[in-house]
Amino acid sequence: MMKNSIGHIFRLTTFGESHGAAVGGVIDGMPAGIEIDLDRVQHELDRRRPGQSAIVTARDEKDRVKILSGIFEGKTTGTSIGFIVENSNQHSADYDNMRDTYRPSHADYAYATKYGVRDHRGGGRSSARETIARVVGGAFARQALEALGIKVYAYTSQVGDIALDRDYKKYDPAMIETNAVRCPDAQKAEQMYQLISQVKADGDTIGGVITGVITGVPCGLGEPAFGKLHASLGAAMLGINAAKGFEYGMGFDGVSCRGSEMIDLFTRREDGSVGTLTNNSGGIQGGISNGEDIYFRVAFKPVATLLREIETIDCNGEAVTLHARGRHDPCVLPRAVPVVEAMAAMVILDAYLINKTVHL
Amino acid sequence: MMKNSIGHIFRLTTFGESHGAAVGGVIDGMPAGIEIDLDRVQHELDRRRPGQSAIVTARDEKDRVKILSGIFEGKTTGTSIGFIVENSNQHSADYDNMRDTYRPSHADYAYATKYGVRDHRGGGRSSARETIARVVGGAFARQALEALGIKVYAYTSQVGDIALDRDYKKYDPAMIETNAVRCPDAQKAEQMYQLISQVKADGDTIGGVITGVITGVPCGLGEPAFGKLHASLGAAMLGINAAKGFEYGMGFDGVSCRGSEMIDLFTRREDGSVGTLTNNSGGIQGGISNGEDIYFRVAFKPVATLLREIETIDCNGEAVTLHARGRHDPCVLPRAVPVVEAMAAMVILDAYLINKTVHL
Amino acid sequence: MMKNSIGHIFRLTTFGESHGAAVGGVIDGMPAGIEIDLDRVQHELDRRRPGQSAIVTARDEKDRVKILSGIFEGKTTGTSIGFIVENSNQHSADYDNMRDTYRPSHADYAYATKYGVRDHRGGGRSSARETIARVVGGAFARQALEALGIKVYAYTSQVGDIALDRDYKKYDPAMIETNAVRCPDAQKAEQMYQLISQVKADGDTIGGVITGVITGVPCGLGEPAFGKLHASLGAAMLGINAAKGFEYGMGFDGVSCRGSEMIDLFTRREDGSVGTLTNNSGGIQGGISNGEDIYFRVAFKPVATLLREIETIDCNGEAVTLHARGRHDPCVLPRAVPVVEAMAAMVILDAYLINKTVHL
Amino acid sequence: MMKNSIGHIFRLTTFGESHGAAVGGVIDGMPAGIEIDLDRVQHELDRRRPGQSAIVTARDEKDRVKILSGIFEGKTTGTSIGFIVENSNQHSADYDNMRDTYRPSHADYAYATKYGVRDHRGGGRSSARETIARVVGGAFARQALEALGIKVYAYTSQVGDIALDRDYKKYDPAMIETNAVRCPDAQKAEQMYQLISQVKADGDTIGGVITGVITGVPCGLGEPAFGKLHASLGAAMLGINAAKGFEYGMGFDGVSCRGSEMIDLFTRREDGSVGTLTNNSGGIQGGISNGEDIYFRVAFKPVATLLREIETIDCNGEAVTLHARGRHDPCVLPRAVPVVEAMAAMVILDAYLINKTVHL
Repeated sequence: MMKNSIGHIFRLTTFGESHGAAVGGVIDGMPAGIEIDLDRVQHELDRRRPGQSAIVTARDEKDRVKILSGIFEGKTTGTSIGFIVENSNQHSADYDNMRDTYRPSHADYAYATKYGVRDHRGGGRSSARETIARVVGGAFARQALEALGIKVYAYTSQVGDIALDRDYKKYDPAMIETNAVRCPDAQKAEQMYQLISQVKADGDTIGGVITGVITGVPCGLGEPAFGKLHASLGAAMLGINAAKGFEYGMGFDGVSCRGSEMIDLFTRREDGSVGTLTNNSGGIQGGISNGEDIYFRVAFKPVATLLREIETIDCNGEAVTLHARGRHDPCVLPRAVPVVEAMAAMVILDAYLINKTVHL
Repeated sequence: MMKNSIGHIFRLTTFGESHGAAVGGVIDGMPAGIEIDLDRVQHELDRRRPGQSAIVTARDEKDRVKILSGIFEGKTTGTSIGFIVENSNQHSADYDNMRDTYRPSHADYAYATKYGVRDHRGGGRSSARETIARVVGGAFARQALEALGIKVYAYTSQVGDIALDRDYKKYDPAMIETNAVRCPDAQKAEQMYQLISQVKADGDTIGGVITGVITGVPCGLGEPAFGKLHASLGAAMLGINAAKGFEYGMGFDGVSCRGSEMIDLFTRREDGSVGTLTNNSGGIQGGISNGEDIYFRVAFKPVATLLREIETIDCNGEAVTLHARGRHDPCVLPRAVPVVEAMAAMVILDAYLINKTVHL
Repeated sequence: MMKNSIGHIFRLTTFGESHGAAVGGVIDGMPAGIEIDLDRVQHELDRRRPGQSAIVTARDEKDRVKILSGIFEGKTTGTSIGFIVENSNQHSADYDNMRDTYRPSHADYAYATKYGVRDHRGGGRSSARETIARVVGGAFARQALEALGIKVYAYTSQVGDIALDRDYKKYDPAMIETNAVRCPDAQKAEQMYQLISQVKADGDTIGGVITGVITGVPCGLGEPAFGKLHASLGAAMLGINAAKGFEYGMGFDGVSCRGSEMIDLFTRREDGSVGTLTNNSGGIQGGISNGEDIYFRVAFKPVATLLREIETIDCNGEAVTLHARGRHDPCVLPRAVPVVEAMAAMVILDAYLINKTVHL
Repeated sequence: MMKNSIGHIFRLTTFGESHGAAVGGVIDGMPAGIEIDLDRVQHELDRRRPGQSAIVTARDEKDRVKILSGIFEGKTTGTSIGFIVENSNQHSADYDNMRDTYRPSHADYAYATKYGVRDHRGGGRSSARETIARVVGGAFARQALEALGIKVYAYTSQVGDIALDRDYKKYDPAMIETNAVRCPDAQKAEQMYQLISQVKADGDTIGGVITGVITGVPCGLGEPAFGKLHASLGAAMLGINAAKGFEYGMGFDGVSCRGSEMIDLFTRREDGSVGTLTNNSGGIQGGISNGEDIYFRVAFKPVATLLREIETIDCNGEAVTLHARGRHDPCVLPRAVPVVEAMAAMVILDAYLINKTVHL
């Protein structure tokens, strides 16, 4: 997890800049013998790709994944899986004016200072195009998890001030893909859509919250001390471009509760299994899954690229006026939903595999 | 970071259960030649120790650290630093009734299911006594950071519904240690103190928020993709017992802003250096420090140990009534402040050392 | 180093099977701002490629490397470098008879048992084609090392019973590439060439030893305990296909010496620097480089693919007769020389970067 | 494995200098529920301790291990195991004359150059006392392996020019502990004993070879590419103080064989299982165990501490005469045997646990 890798047993390593030849990665530790539906891998990329709707960037990237290794006759072989997604439809010239200019609240200045050299085109390595590789990694993890009965989904639960006000259990995941916002409440989705459209018309951007849910997780995943399951989930989510916060279970809202309101009492279910009456803990206790649903929320800031004139500085520290060109998302939430799912799937599969080593 | 270690270059590995012989750890990667003031290491432990005030647990643990290696004639040698803190004043018999009983919202059930075997006394490995080792690790990291002009502090910014309502810059860090709550606003601190006292009298518990601040961080710390500085900070904070959420910069509040309100415009300071007019980003852009102050917030739930009768289950799934004995904190916030500081110090030092490898 | 990655700061992760679409990898942690000569990267691959001479396999693979990221305007950007080498000229049908057959002393049986599924074509992931990715990684590392004045070279020092009998210092590295065997002694090279030709004519194979030398290494690389420089070098060399042994300095020969014959006495050189009169230690003492040349030897077994009929078993444990087709090396040494160099370069660069973190 | 840790799932982290307060470590990833016989852990330390016989150093160290965590009611809990062995019987004053002097072929000069600061007493961190922690780690691993039917043993197979000349299968492991040299051939053991005694009388030292054997290893341990089982074993062995070489199977001797002499033909055993007729591969093919015995050899140099006057230099580069005091081993082999076993046990257990993650 130091630089461009995430995970311990199931580990994804990524490469690629926005305007380079390709983005891609290597999946190491994918279990052997899993049948892989490559159409479903591509489907996840299609959910992330630009140009899906009027409220996302109009870039027309095909984002076709090529798998280069690790699969033989339709099944994973247990060896590393290399893949690439070629870049196309880049309008690198759109970025010529940014060669020596640092866009406010972008990584430009920090990268230039850190590395001394910088691919300025489209954000280079700091571009959200890097998440393509995560979506591919997640699509593999997801197919392994499904063989275990574990399901992962996410949805837009807030855009600006428009927020879903009910518990995740009240929403039907089947509704998520019925609208461009990826919100399971059709009415709120429409309001969010209008808000994003308005923001876009203003040349501005808006933030929001994505809720993630993982069902079917067996009790026991996660490790004590520094390998707590929610810490791994949190790191994975915070590593997504534009993420500013992570909470699970009752999260920040729980801080004003008393312990007596918060604790999840145990119950014995009809089938004899043990469960909890409530799930304020969010499916994780002491860092280890307890068999209940895991749910969490990720805050995304409004992206920093505004389609209007902005005062900023160049690499000499001189004041300049920047007018961003290019095609940008007024709100990253709809396209970030599959990224949240992908990261969650990879974290859970990794925790599942690590947990196999607890006993001989 | 898989199990009991955190960090890559500066790495802490911990061991120890609440009622075992000792807790301790190994610090690997501490830079060589740093003069260490062991009194200050002990001082950090004293800030964390029980029995400091009427609003924390009355356990009378001395928590004296013994350094076993890695220091020669007062300086770090660059080799690994082993240390232990012996356990004492344990009342293990207080936990006899928990041998076969799972306390609600504790790790008991998850640990028992995961491992099949469990040290039930005082929570075993899941006890917050494990954070002793973190405080020691952080105390070393802090002394290295100070040589670099980097300072870390944290304070209680919310208990229950009582919250500080101003920016961290408005508070004087020198005020933090003037009250038992570790809150820099004396009036709010007194209200928090009253609330915690009331909650304690009720045999209940209450949560809150700790704000962390890091000043003097040079531009360039943190890595792209999966090593983003805030992702490492978030994982470290979420790994603290009872943490439920993490946000940095504007965090969850920022989601309702527009990009035009949120971006931090650059400015050139009188000394010629580049800075930002605002700091909504929280000192990190694209995962890399930009030279501004880093600030973040960590949500802590009310702890689950209530000093009252609770209905729960035993290891056979049978309903039992539990009356927790032992001496417990009604609110973890005051004692968690030095733990938040310790984790932050270790993450920043690790990022600093990693950043040294970016150039030949 | 768990599965398909090697290194800590400078880390190579590889993928690819012999008859898959491509082999490739990701280089993480390459320092920023290094000018890269891509022709020299390709040159290293050309040294490794089949079909170079009459004594190596006749497969006609072009092995052209495509760099996909991490370089901008001719310089490394400090971000991850993805690359692929497409497979071509595979005669997969040559391997049809091996689908269910386990070749003796190959990885076939062990892979099939471990994974349950196996790409049998050309050895799949266990093929030495995987070393292509290492050569690319090493070619980058080498260009960084050269900026530091560190040079790496290797040569064939033994084939069968024909062995060089003098110290590495007696041979001119400029002679290595003057013959197909990559041996700096022209006369011995000719003898080795004849031996390999004879072995090939017999449908048999032969082993040998490669000597590696690293000059210009500063004092201080390597870590105590488990990160000793020679242990990292050894692991890297032993991880090359067909390697069976590793020794450095006096190695196995030194075991019959007395300490008084073996110790390297210090001397002060004319320029005031400290050195040793002899270098029996091989440039590493206590696991840490001491500024002298590092030299080591790697034993390679005769490869197991014989072009003759062999009795073996199939996946049901039934006896079968196998007649290997395909184009194979009678002796891996000549083509393994650039692989040894590549691995050495990567280990030294990684150690160099880690050593930068020893001081603030 | 970067600095003071080894292993991925089963991971040992060590600390401690020769003349510090204690050496010790943390074992992370020990499987849960394993019954531990602490007397056997101590027994392994007793095999390593000084003062066992007339041919090892006369230092009278008790080396009693204290386990501080991770065991509850006699069983491992799956959480990290902290342990210490206090130093005693140090004669630090014996080393006063080495404060500013660099002993030839020791780590003194390299450490001083690397770190700038150095604990000169008894070699500090570079002392072989550090292997105490490895022996403890290995003793835990061994008890887990035994539950799997895997056994590890090692013996002295060469001292100076006196070498065992037969295959490991010809020797009875029960004979190893019958003599002070730890050699299973009583007659050769006596010759070795005489040689070591003579060398000791001369104030000199002598090297040798230890052979290690691992039986009962299931097929499938080890990983492709960089995680090959023999590469992990090699790194572990080369990381032992004074080790200069590692080979497995036919090793360096095999380089003069032809492939047709070397390959291990398969056979079907009476019980229906698959095996090989010979075992020139040393139980590992393509980096993965094949179910046959694993055997390997480790070369140890004569230690560099001679009990005679030696010309060397001090930290200013000035020539000085050193007369080492202290109590030293004339030959490390007898005491290194349990260290070799410990390292082997840890590597195999780690590989076993990693292999569990290959399938869901």
